[in-house]
Amino acid sequence: MSSAAEKVLRRRLIQRPADPGFRQTLYDVIFEADTPLGRGFDVGLLVAIITSIVLVALETVPEYELQLDNESGQPASSLAKAFWVAEWALTILFTIEYGLRLYCVRHPLKYAFSFWGVVDLLSILPGYLTLYVEYSAKSFVILRSIRLLRVFRVLKLWRMMSQADELADAVWKSREKIIVFLAVVLVAVTISGTLMYQIETVLMGKYHESDFTSIPQAMYWAIVTMTTVGYGDVVPHTTIGKIISAVLILLGYSLIIVPTGFVSAELSGRGQTATEHHRCAQCGLMRHRETADYCDRCGHRLDEALPTQDNGELLQ
Amino acid sequence: MSSAAEKVLRRRLIQRPADPGFRQTLYDVIFEADTPLGRGFDVGLLVAIITSIVLVALETVPEYELQLDNESGQPASSLAKAFWVAEWALTILFTIEYGLRLYCVRHPLKYAFSFWGVVDLLSILPGYLTLYVEYSAKSFVILRSIRLLRVFRVLKLWRMMSQADELADAVWKSREKIIVFLAVVLVAVTISGTLMYQIETVLMGKYHESDFTSIPQAMYWAIVTMTTVGYGDVVPHTTIGKIISAVLILLGYSLIIVPTGFVSAELSGRGQTATEHHRCAQCGLMRHRETADYCDRCGHRLDEALPTQDNGELLQ
Amino acid sequence: MSSAAEKVLRRRLIQRPADPGFRQTLYDVIFEADTPLGRGFDVGLLVAIITSIVLVALETVPEYELQLDNESGQPASSLAKAFWVAEWALTILFTIEYGLRLYCVRHPLKYAFSFWGVVDLLSILPGYLTLYVEYSAKSFVILRSIRLLRVFRVLKLWRMMSQADELADAVWKSREKIIVFLAVVLVAVTISGTLMYQIETVLMGKYHESDFTSIPQAMYWAIVTMTTVGYGDVVPHTTIGKIISAVLILLGYSLIIVPTGFVSAELSGRGQTATEHHRCAQCGLMRHRETADYCDRCGHRLDEALPTQDNGELLQ
Amino acid sequence: MSSAAEKVLRRRLIQRPADPGFRQTLYDVIFEADTPLGRGFDVGLLVAIITSIVLVALETVPEYELQLDNESGQPASSLAKAFWVAEWALTILFTIEYGLRLYCVRHPLKYAFSFWGVVDLLSILPGYLTLYVEYSAKSFVILRSIRLLRVFRVLKLWRMMSQADELADAVWKSREKIIVFLAVVLVAVTISGTLMYQIETVLMGKYHESDFTSIPQAMYWAIVTMTTVGYGDVVPHTTIGKIISAVLILLGYSLIIVPTGFVSAELSGRGQTATEHHRCAQCGLMRHRETADYCDRCGHRLDEALPTQDNGELLQ
Repeated sequence: MSSAAEKVLRRRLIQRPADPGFRQTLYDVIFEADTPLGRGFDVGLLVAIITSIVLVALETVPEYELQLDNESGQPASSLAKAFWVAEWALTILFTIEYGLRLYCVRHPLKYAFSFWGVVDLLSILPGYLTLYVEYSAKSFVILRSIRLLRVFRVLKLWRMMSQADELADAVWKSREKIIVFLAVVLVAVTISGTLMYQIETVLMGKYHESDFTSIPQAMYWAIVTMTTVGYGDVVPHTTIGKIISAVLILLGYSLIIVPTGFVSAELSGRGQTATEHHRCAQCGLMRHRETADYCDRCGHRLDEALPTQDNGELLQ
Repeated sequence: MSSAAEKVLRRRLIQRPADPGFRQTLYDVIFEADTPLGRGFDVGLLVAIITSIVLVALETVPEYELQLDNESGQPASSLAKAFWVAEWALTILFTIEYGLRLYCVRHPLKYAFSFWGVVDLLSILPGYLTLYVEYSAKSFVILRSIRLLRVFRVLKLWRMMSQADELADAVWKSREKIIVFLAVVLVAVTISGTLMYQIETVLMGKYHESDFTSIPQAMYWAIVTMTTVGYGDVVPHTTIGKIISAVLILLGYSLIIVPTGFVSAELSGRGQTATEHHRCAQCGLMRHRETADYCDRCGHRLDEALPTQDNGELLQ
Repeated sequence: MSSAAEKVLRRRLIQRPADPGFRQTLYDVIFEADTPLGRGFDVGLLVAIITSIVLVALETVPEYELQLDNESGQPASSLAKAFWVAEWALTILFTIEYGLRLYCVRHPLKYAFSFWGVVDLLSILPGYLTLYVEYSAKSFVILRSIRLLRVFRVLKLWRMMSQADELADAVWKSREKIIVFLAVVLVAVTISGTLMYQIETVLMGKYHESDFTSIPQAMYWAIVTMTTVGYGDVVPHTTIGKIISAVLILLGYSLIIVPTGFVSAELSGRGQTATEHHRCAQCGLMRHRETADYCDRCGHRLDEALPTQDNGELLQ
Repeated sequence: MSSAAEKVLRRRLIQRPADPGFRQTLYDVIFEADTPLGRGFDVGLLVAIITSIVLVALETVPEYELQLDNESGQPASSLAKAFWVAEWALTILFTIEYGLRLYCVRHPLKYAFSFWGVVDLLSILPGYLTLYVEYSAKSFVILRSIRLLRVFRVLKLWRMMSQADELADAVWKSREKIIVFLAVVLVAVTISGTLMYQIETVLMGKYHESDFTSIPQAMYWAIVTMTTVGYGDVVPHTTIGKIISAVLILLGYSLIIVPTGFVSAELSGRGQTATEHHRCAQCGLMRHRETADYCDRCGHRLDEALPTQDNGELLQ
């Protein structure tokens, strides 16, 4: 974690203008949150982002839908006009912000092609595209929603991302378990989906149509069921199908719940994880108790233990 | 916990009348649960509150609905009459109780504007409002249900709230994690909702109507799905929509389940374990609990311990 | 646990006939599982119980339903006849078993009125009742299913119940937390149910009927939603109703998930719980680490610590 | 883990040809993943397996369904032809692979009857069966999907299975708890299903049909509900049915959630902590891990330790 924090710090310092002056002050306001002005900028930006997303969402509600007058290309109703004005105001605001960011960083091109630079550009692009392409509230909505990712940038400046780093770290540490888990889930989903498809299509006969119209549909059912979402749009109709799906639910439930303990354990047992790194030099045991000074399998002193590789894989 | 309990105790003592006498005795009966009479009062109040809520709930059932005779303003049927009588009996009972509470506390105004004072007032108000406003079982039901909060007051007197304090404490300790978690969930809900909206509306065409009628509707779907509630009222109908929603379910599932471990860890007291901040100068034990002042192996004071490497507070 | 096991042992010894002989041997076969014969008896009984339950379940399936000939009072079809014969064979078997149990225990009356004695009687009663009351597969099914409880008796003889005891113990230890939790859940269910009822009925108007027909119905919705079951039979239809229910889902989800950690912690942290019993004699701290010899708050030696009451309630 | 890994290693070495040469090289490529060629083979096989499964799944989608010309026995459309060719190409590929595996192992018969040998044979069989039996995309799909199990073989070669071993180990350790848990769940499912069946059929009367048509159907409802899947295809319609099902949901929820903590605890390694069986003779530490042979504080051997009170093994 400490190293992740340092990395972020270093990356940021690279972009900060070296000489004191307007650009450096601007940089501190826009990119940092240590000054009252910087904090204010962040709050303002957060409000603007959330407002713009709320606008995008409301525009798709049939009653509020933005309708343009066919002749003038202007919005038809007064509510639509308000949406239209707010939309453009925010687009221009985000454009100015993007320009200022490019202006005050030390290497503008490097910034423009960085992750946040691309996200910034994608946030303002759809607004201008509507000038050339026929406007419809439903176009580019997915592009517009990318804007929301910038919320994390603002939160990051507030140093909350260390929490997310911690989480990412824990997930990363249990990556092998997650891969095995995903493989097991996918195989289980495919096999149980196929099984239900075969049973339901055979038993329902040719006249009554089963909900399990194809294997992909049956796999969709298996995922919806195993995660306990259970929409109920695909459901077994035969008695045997119901019995088998009941068994599959119980199996799938264990399949999902049991490995959840792994990541949780990794997350909550962070102290323990650190101790795992010290491997007993004599017998090779890796999991010791927090307060252990001696290996409880062979009695060897752990201080002299050799640290193993990050993941402690004996087999490799 | 102990300090929270003390705080509650102190706050309570402020309101207890100083001089022994009827008011002090009444105060002990109504506000405390140490005497048999006080305990009896609490049980009685609990029964009255629950009865009144059951009445409010039953009145809305179409078969039992309270119908007033248009001419006399009196309830029409005998069952409706019974409801009407019980309702008024409880309202009067709660009014008397409210009066007694105001009478026996040391500072009545302070009590009237305290949290429980306001809740007490709100519990009796809807009853009297029906005298002025045309009566309907469906009006003020939400105001009436606030009455139920008083159940906690009774439980609190029985000192069970220390459990809730513990929970609140654990939640408070992991507040940063919860904020990041909520931000991640909201961003995930918005982006996945928007994605599904775009896919389903484009693929369903103009003739068949998709369940995803707007982005707010799609976000409602995303929340219902990610929490594994899965009503099934909004469901993807296209093959691509189903594939994407299956992937989103698996992602959303991990998103919800994984951070749950955080709060659980905080609750089960594991969050307190193992920091490497201090090394015991006497026995050399390095991993102590965060709250430790003394080494729990040798009893040596940790203040004199040598600080070791810091972990992650570098940015602050 | 140890004391629970002793209690069971003591209770059992009371009923074992004192003098060696046929009754004692029979007792060991029927009530114990130490001999091969006793084990065989248990397996046989387990098979009989499960068979009888499967029969009861199958009889209710419309296709297999047991139909009696109106004139002769005998089953109509050959399948129905098979069901009828199996049913009576098992009833007679269970009757003999009940008789033998009464015969070989030291105090038959005491056994007849014990928990398992009553369950044994209830298992055979419905069979004989059908001689007097008009027979229908659907009558007494709930009485018949009580038979299934006897499965636990057999498992108990196999000493697996110590696991269940452990669980019950853990649940018992966290009873206060569970009561507070249930109170919070019930209050949340009532208030959110009432809120949704009011919103949906007001917004849907008089013409379109809302799914939330009454407060009990709305509370049923709240329970189905908060536990993430989500049938989808009661669902919000208005936009505001959907927004509020989305918020309630997220709140309710945390409400259910967070306290789950409590019981899990109690279950998994059994070692830690034991240590809690030792309270520091100097500062009163109760939660120490497993390996702690000294209190890490005040440095006092824990060996001299006074054991507190089972639940360690400081406040009481 | 280490011993499990050794066992796998030993089992593998038995089949490796003793003399260096073509067969040994081939063996290393096909069965091992230490060489670049071996790794490449594994990746290729993984791709082939997944491709074949995707093909099987897509063939069942009504739009892509493989239709054979009635006269020539050849596929009708060009898309169907592509499917047909790919299907046969993969079948032949898997046949060659199966042949090579049999050729390069030391004991071909032993391999043919091993778990993976049978899975390998089952993967190619359905392809050839279609030559004799009338072809239909829907036949043998369940046999074809067994092919997917081979994904684990490839992953196993990459030594990821040690994770699965760990999981299996944890599940095995808590087997008694799981059996008791399953017994409790099945009894709860049967009794609550029967209860709901009786209530709904009696209350719905003869004219309106209840969703609970039989006890097996009601048990299907109970499983779908208790695991919080909640399809909504079987749902209570009476008020009393709804109240009882709400109570059953809350009970069932606790039933499922609570014991989940057991396996999670076992997985996160807390199950191993803290037994009071032995006291270290040298330093007096009492709480050691179940597997400990030496005291982890002072390194003294625990065999010489004095046994303290036993906990719960009294009955055995």
